[in-house]
Amino acid sequence: MNDPRARKATQAALMATADETEASFYDAMQQGDLDRMMATWADDEEIACVHPGGPRVVGTVAVRAGFEAMFANGGVHIEVHHVRRFESEQCAVHHVTEKVQALTEKGHQTAYVMATNVYTRTAQGWRMVAHHASPGMSQDLPDIAEPRAVLH
Amino acid sequence: MNDPRARKATQAALMATADETEASFYDAMQQGDLDRMMATWADDEEIACVHPGGPRVVGTVAVRAGFEAMFANGGVHIEVHHVRRFESEQCAVHHVTEKVQALTEKGHQTAYVMATNVYTRTAQGWRMVAHHASPGMSQDLPDIAEPRAVLH
Repeated sequence: MNDPRARKATQAALMATADETEASFYDAMQQGDLDRMMATWADDEEIACVHPGGPRVVGTVAVRAGFEAMFANGGVHIEVHHVRRFESEQCAVHHVTEKVQALTEKGHQTAYVMATNVYTRTAQGWRMVAHHASPGMSQDLPDIAEPRAVLH
Repeated sequence: MNDPRARKATQAALMATADETEASFYDAMQQGDLDRMMATWADDEEIACVHPGGPRVVGTVAVRAGFEAMFANGGVHIEVHHVRRFESEQCAVHHVTEKVQALTEKGHQTAYVMATNVYTRTAQGWRMVAHHASPGMSQDLPDIAEPRAVLH
């Protein structure tokens, strides 16, 4: 498909909801597919990305460079554990837990990463404008959705 | 001001922009003012808050309980260092660095916290729907807005 208009129309159709854009984001991460990754982001100088433990990366050029470095050794073994969603007509905020697996000097390691993904509706479908991931933890902390019990 | 309509109108006027809501959020944090804090949030079961190093707290009841625990000993010495903004008609994403100071067993300690604040426009003005803060660092990491230099 070499016609850029057809390509854009296909992308928009593939990102008709924030959930579809999110699925595409994590597929691109697993496959280490830089072009597909960047197609999930809005084309805006104020997009921002915080990888676990890293600095804040702002703008399309720097965000792309950050994922390029991440994908230097291929894709990331990552899956999304659960999602909470705040959704309005123009904006969606997804709170996810990422389960990331990596082969390190200590063998196979698993980390759980809390991430907030923000999407906005554009003419090209729903696009990511922010990804903020906290440093990985060894456990998947359950959400707190009720007040904590008070110990007396 | 005991008329709830008047109070709501005043709140909306005070939160006519995401910046004003953000200022109110951090003022409430500094003063340990729980009611003022909760007035900056949307009244929605899908609001979510991640305090540094903590779990994800979801919904108005649990978010309120989390701030109540935080304010048990008064306000937090917190100031906002710099802000990057993605803003659209209905939605604003602010990336801030919080400078937090606390008196600990080791004396006065300063931590820098990267936070993502998401606001949406409601009939009651701009309201926070998500606050995601990463664990504090001893340094204020500068943003990366240009591709990193590659070492050869």
